[in-house]
Amino acid sequence: KKESAWKRFLALHDALSGWFCVLLIAINIGIIAAIVDIGAIWLSNIKTGICLPAFYLSREQCCWTASNQTYDKYQHVVCDNWYTWANLIRIENGTTTEYIIDYIAYVFFGLIFATLCAILVKTFAPYACGSGVPEVKTILSGFIIRGYLGVWTLLIKSLGMVLGTSANLLLGKEGPFVHSSCCCGNIFARLFPKYGQNEAKKREILSAAAAAGVSVAFGAPIGGVLFSLEEVSYYFPLKTLWRSFFCAMIASLIVKILSPFENQHLGLFYVGNRYRWFYFEMVPFFLLGVLGGLFGALFIKLNLAWCRIRKKTRLGRYPVLEVILVALVTLLVSYPNPFTRMSMSDLIRRLISSCETEDESLLCNYQRNTTSAYEKNESAKPLYGVWLSVGLLCSALVTQTSLFILTFGIKVPCGLFIPSMTLGAITGRIVGILFETLVYYQPNFFLFAAECSTADEQCVVPGFYAVIGACAFLGGVTRMTVSLVVIMVELTGGLSYSVPLMCAALVSKFVGDALVGEGIYDAHIQLNNYPYLDVKAEFVDQTTAVTVLETKQDKNELIMLPRDSLTVGELINIIHTYKYNGYPVVSSREEASIIGFVLRRDLQLVLEQRAVINVQSNLNTQISFSRITHQSNSIHIYRLLNRSPATITLDTPTTTIIDMCRKLGAQTILVTNEKGHLTGILTKKDIIAYVKQKKMK
Amino acid sequence: KKESAWKRFLALHDALSGWFCVLLIAINIGIIAAIVDIGAIWLSNIKTGICLPAFYLSREQCCWTASNQTYDKYQHVVCDNWYTWANLIRIENGTTTEYIIDYIAYVFFGLIFATLCAILVKTFAPYACGSGVPEVKTILSGFIIRGYLGVWTLLIKSLGMVLGTSANLLLGKEGPFVHSSCCCGNIFARLFPKYGQNEAKKREILSAAAAAGVSVAFGAPIGGVLFSLEEVSYYFPLKTLWRSFFCAMIASLIVKILSPFENQHLGLFYVGNRYRWFYFEMVPFFLLGVLGGLFGALFIKLNLAWCRIRKKTRLGRYPVLEVILVALVTLLVSYPNPFTRMSMSDLIRRLISSCETEDESLLCNYQRNTTSAYEKNESAKPLYGVWLSVGLLCSALVTQTSLFILTFGIKVPCGLFIPSMTLGAITGRIVGILFETLVYYQPNFFLFAAECSTADEQCVVPGFYAVIGACAFLGGVTRMTVSLVVIMVELTGGLSYSVPLMCAALVSKFVGDALVGEGIYDAHIQLNNYPYLDVKAEFVDQTTAVTVLETKQDKNELIMLPRDSLTVGELINIIHTYKYNGYPVVSSREEASIIGFVLRRDLQLVLEQRAVINVQSNLNTQISFSRITHQSNSIHIYRLLNRSPATITLDTPTTTIIDMCRKLGAQTILVTNEKGHLTGILTKKDIIAYVKQKKMK
Repeated sequence: KKESAWKRFLALHDALSGWFCVLLIAINIGIIAAIVDIGAIWLSNIKTGICLPAFYLSREQCCWTASNQTYDKYQHVVCDNWYTWANLIRIENGTTTEYIIDYIAYVFFGLIFATLCAILVKTFAPYACGSGVPEVKTILSGFIIRGYLGVWTLLIKSLGMVLGTSANLLLGKEGPFVHSSCCCGNIFARLFPKYGQNEAKKREILSAAAAAGVSVAFGAPIGGVLFSLEEVSYYFPLKTLWRSFFCAMIASLIVKILSPFENQHLGLFYVGNRYRWFYFEMVPFFLLGVLGGLFGALFIKLNLAWCRIRKKTRLGRYPVLEVILVALVTLLVSYPNPFTRMSMSDLIRRLISSCETEDESLLCNYQRNTTSAYEKNESAKPLYGVWLSVGLLCSALVTQTSLFILTFGIKVPCGLFIPSMTLGAITGRIVGILFETLVYYQPNFFLFAAECSTADEQCVVPGFYAVIGACAFLGGVTRMTVSLVVIMVELTGGLSYSVPLMCAALVSKFVGDALVGEGIYDAHIQLNNYPYLDVKAEFVDQTTAVTVLETKQDKNELIMLPRDSLTVGELINIIHTYKYNGYPVVSSREEASIIGFVLRRDLQLVLEQRAVINVQSNLNTQISFSRITHQSNSIHIYRLLNRSPATITLDTPTTTIIDMCRKLGAQTILVTNEKGHLTGILTKKDIIAYVKQKKMK
Repeated sequence: KKESAWKRFLALHDALSGWFCVLLIAINIGIIAAIVDIGAIWLSNIKTGICLPAFYLSREQCCWTASNQTYDKYQHVVCDNWYTWANLIRIENGTTTEYIIDYIAYVFFGLIFATLCAILVKTFAPYACGSGVPEVKTILSGFIIRGYLGVWTLLIKSLGMVLGTSANLLLGKEGPFVHSSCCCGNIFARLFPKYGQNEAKKREILSAAAAAGVSVAFGAPIGGVLFSLEEVSYYFPLKTLWRSFFCAMIASLIVKILSPFENQHLGLFYVGNRYRWFYFEMVPFFLLGVLGGLFGALFIKLNLAWCRIRKKTRLGRYPVLEVILVALVTLLVSYPNPFTRMSMSDLIRRLISSCETEDESLLCNYQRNTTSAYEKNESAKPLYGVWLSVGLLCSALVTQTSLFILTFGIKVPCGLFIPSMTLGAITGRIVGILFETLVYYQPNFFLFAAECSTADEQCVVPGFYAVIGACAFLGGVTRMTVSLVVIMVELTGGLSYSVPLMCAALVSKFVGDALVGEGIYDAHIQLNNYPYLDVKAEFVDQTTAVTVLETKQDKNELIMLPRDSLTVGELINIIHTYKYNGYPVVSSREEASIIGFVLRRDLQLVLEQRAVINVQSNLNTQISFSRITHQSNSIHIYRLLNRSPATITLDTPTTTIIDMCRKLGAQTILVTNEKGHLTGILTKKDIIAYVKQKKMK
């Protein structure tokens, strides 16, 4: 009775330790995310000025307590407590001197942040650079990159995110959050032997952590789980689904509890179900999808080309200098344009919002007949300010796209969600304004007339087009589908937008796939030659193991260990000459029936143990892999043998072999001929090479 | 050049045919769902009365055009155009005679619908009964049930849903919609050879169809995809994810376009982000989760017991009579209680709505100081009407739970989502009202005081508890997690509710799992002894193939066909004596190296073809499975041979064997001994039996 209670306790502990582990991860990444968010906003504001009564407050918080809050024509909050740097040295608002001094301060602080970030990454954690998603994908596919998920990487990546985004560089925090979160996962998994000591189990924890990463970056827990499922994870059993969900939920809850800002249960770019869309608008949405696909293809092509240049030329040797140069150009270019001067999140928020009647910013300069906020907000004629905004947005689109291509890949933590979404929102808003004008001047065109007459308010809302554009561009770059739509729905809080969002995502994926075969993450995996066997691509092929064996590039000699007739000397020789991962053991070299597979590492350990006693005299000692041997002086290593290695015949279809690698996680596969004798070995790398080669053709 | 264009066209066609197939399925199931929805509402209203100006209108539609619309105290719409049956024969409102006549009409019509439904199912499509989800799960795991997904099943199931729900039986439309949708999938897959002729490919289409089924039932496309992923599907590659998503979206769009009701882009039980929840409310939410788990366990236990009684006793022989009896009891019991008289969807909608200040129904009988709709809706003292409602709801809870247990499993199409959610919403509302009263009378209790003071409106909203209750009860019965939360979010349109919903879902799953090991669907799979190898359960076991072979229940003789020395006579004998699925071919019976595996079906075909010529004289003809033979008069059947059968050794761990069945879809696995000779065969059924046996212990 007592024993059974203890057993049940152990079983319970075993079952709960995974949950407890992801809980720890969630709490940790939640706290980190909250700190990063608050820090980034504060540092970002420091570029433009300071809150004199309390320096630790951001611009928005600073103005909460101020007596007179106003908004300038780009909807920045302005108040007495907040001093620009020019104000601080008593230069009046609106003068050229003020502009120049603020410009210099902006560039100066931005440069400092960027330099600091690059130096930190270079000095303490070189792995902390980049987005991290391609590497996490590779790790989750079974490859081990030592130190990639360490404590230092976590610290520097988190700090780097704050500094990088504050410097107004064209980079986001989502990829890095996924990486940080996986670092947390790796660190906490060590506390639980069940997960820390089993790489496969640890990967389940990492999948859940990846979900939490997206969840905290966007406040989109469901989208995070789907992102982990669709984009990052390799093997995703249902238990992982539940844990990921739990992890993502807790993490987003922690961020929301700690966040000092409003709307605690709402999305980052909340618009709610305010906008209503009409079926004829599917045409511009489709167009935005096409634009998104084109943008994605262009971005991937040019970014890859630039990364290759970086790798090959001298540029790659001066990463810090490169970051400083990119930051300098970015800061110089972005200040004059008010739309790029603000942070990208602010810009997106601005672009997706609708023009209320009392709104007097440039972007909302419409000829309205009404002034009261309670009246119906009908379509109106766009005036000078709107067209000026379109011009500014167009120039922003060009500069930011070029900078984005140069930025993604520099040696600081850099994600690409927010930049892609920004560019998409800009394009979407422009398309929206153009389409709005068209509908305004041609109200009786048959497509518009019928549906617009049923509208309560404006028929075409440019803000909604910015939402769709953001979705399309992000889709074009990453080729996500379901997770993208869910993330967008969670970000905007607009469940009724799922159909147009899906339309844009699918169109941009199709267009993008037609032009460049793979998303940015897979492209970077290819670029870096990571051993990643794509789990998504359907592989249609009629060949069998024979073909794969024949096309194997490095036709190594097939080494087999005979079960009984092997001496220590021979073994030492083999181990030194052929540094493979392991060797098959066969009944005899002539009639090579497979007995098992033995790892080189294990053999080395045995030899080291034995060698301690006396080296030379033992060279002729027999080694036996049999269960029972009659020779008493031989070395028995039966227990080292993996007696059920993955085995196929020469006639096994290639698709089955790929499935064995993907789904059963086979690393080495033995091939037998018709007689059941060993004739070859295929490793995962051989198969990856074969698939790549096939794809090229 | 031309050829390559043709090739590209073929490739494009190949790639697009799957998308086109799911598009057809989506459109079809969308249209069916719209017809079923409209039909069910109309028929359901017919029980209570008729719209005299236009008999084809439902009660709500009928009153849209009426001059004087009012609402009775249970928020039923009342207007001049709508006549109850008593009104029709000129009996005045409010009299006892009217009550009795309406009661009789209600029972009469309900009985007719139920009887018709049962007779239709029994006569035309016996497979159309039940929820269909357990069977669809089994089919998707690789088992084939002929005729289960046919045209007749689709028609009768759709019609049966209309009749069954109209009869006020305790059943929903979600499971049946999944089944209908899979029927559509099966029917349309036949049009595309790529999918129609390949069972594995067809299952991908069926997975997408299942997603569309939930999508149209609830207007929850994302939830539908996740339901298909989490609950229904066995193998869910990413391509299927995208297709499912597309299919679900289109289907829900079609339903919304065709639906004559309002709120076209919103969820079925829309409440929006109106309610705000506080952290201290997690306590009652947790409680609701526990109640949901308890309810689920109780329901599964009792329903299974009742189903066993039905199977064993005479009851099972009179399915139509059983339906009529259950319907009679249901109708008699549900009319007197106004909460059960309405349809379950209406009841849920009523229970999750909040009490606006001008609301004067029984459930909203609070002592309000304000009367204007624009004033702040603060907590108020519940009056007599609220307590009467609680009493009615309690009695409804008891009667409906008992009826639900008896109903699920009768021979009509019956889902369990809506009934479970109804019972959950009732419980939730009761708990909500009790908790609201507690907070109202103890406003200074430390937990409540701090947070409630920040509330804009009421602190505790009982309607929100109904939402959580619905989630918890459904979770307890089905053990869904992620998909459940997403479905609830989509149904209510409340993205900000995901945390409390998740809390309730996880708690109810844990409690339920602790009491009864599996959800209702898996329980019914067990009950019906379907050959389903659970893909979710983690199987921890140290045994190897030896153990599985030893515990095999029906220790059949191991039949091997020698490669060269087999005669037609021997083969005919073997085929007649041992009716296995197929036979292994070995080099010779003495030294049984595996050459391949040959299906019995194929051998029969060959023998039939040969036998036509002359039977007797051929009995001694040699059969050869070799690639090349020297005997000219022998029968060569090398090409029938599967030369790469799944092969394992006696030392292969059981977990690997299970993975081969689950992930590689192996049906028959050959076992070799240390010498590489065949020693046994394991079929999927053996493995299922072994897993079951292990679980029992």
